[in-house]
Amino acid sequence: MSTNPTTIEAPAGTPFLETTREFDATPAQLFRVQTDPELVVQWLGPRDLEMTIEQYDVRPGGSYRYLHRRGDEEYAFRGVFHTVEPETLVIQTFEWEGAPGEVCLERATYEKTDTGVRLHTQSIFPSIASRDAAVESGMVHGINESMDRLAELLARGEGR
Amino acid sequence: MSTNPTTIEAPAGTPFLETTREFDATPAQLFRVQTDPELVVQWLGPRDLEMTIEQYDVRPGGSYRYLHRRGDEEYAFRGVFHTVEPETLVIQTFEWEGAPGEVCLERATYEKTDTGVRLHTQSIFPSIASRDAAVESGMVHGINESMDRLAELLARGEGR
Repeated sequence: MSTNPTTIEAPAGTPFLETTREFDATPAQLFRVQTDPELVVQWLGPRDLEMTIEQYDVRPGGSYRYLHRRGDEEYAFRGVFHTVEPETLVIQTFEWEGAPGEVCLERATYEKTDTGVRLHTQSIFPSIASRDAAVESGMVHGINESMDRLAELLARGEGR
Repeated sequence: MSTNPTTIEAPAGTPFLETTREFDATPAQLFRVQTDPELVVQWLGPRDLEMTIEQYDVRPGGSYRYLHRRGDEEYAFRGVFHTVEPETLVIQTFEWEGAPGEVCLERATYEKTDTGVRLHTQSIFPSIASRDAAVESGMVHGINESMDRLAELLARGEGR
């Protein structure tokens, strides 16, 4: 199981949130685990939420929608993929339907390293205030758990 | 012909570009002129560029791609629509293919006023540097001419 740290940066006065994490895997393996719906439900989100994917059409112009549930609570998320360059670059929109119109633009880049692959993500929020609110809401906890779960899946050989 | 001014704001140190313009038209008329491809080619961009639309599928999850030409020069733009609430709110991605991966998120809101409709747009760039570069490249000129051409079309009754 990977013990690499996840670095999360939210520079003050900007609408940006950036994360960096290295995985002991190939870019191809990481890309599959990040885009195959049957694998995505096993790592995206905090451990105590159950994920259901309604649509996950990973191609330029494709859409996605998924639900996170914990007991009676339900959170729905949706967006569209703008850029999909396998193992290289994915750019997509992201909206929590509980805050309609507060749409983020998300960018993920894959960089091959000596020992594996470095995943860098950038989320751009529609305002500095909405970025700050997301950070304060526990998003950082969700990112950390997601990245750890992703590492665990890769360590088990998923996506190979 | 409308002589309302276009206000353009690019706050220093942010990746945001915002424009505001009032039109002597209904929100429904403005929405049609902004979303019907046969009308869009008549106003979007500077006057000295010819516009050709390949795709303009204005619905959540729809894609668009268009070309601007001036003599031998050709500029291609593409994106996807995330939110389309007619006469209210449109959120879409935007990329000039000449700078691949530099994707913006654009938001347009319509607000009914006593005399017409106020269009407010926000472009969020992927970095402060790319926002600054766009402003310096003549984007402001293009926005001003686009908004004037849009007002002229509305004054002729298009979209009614």
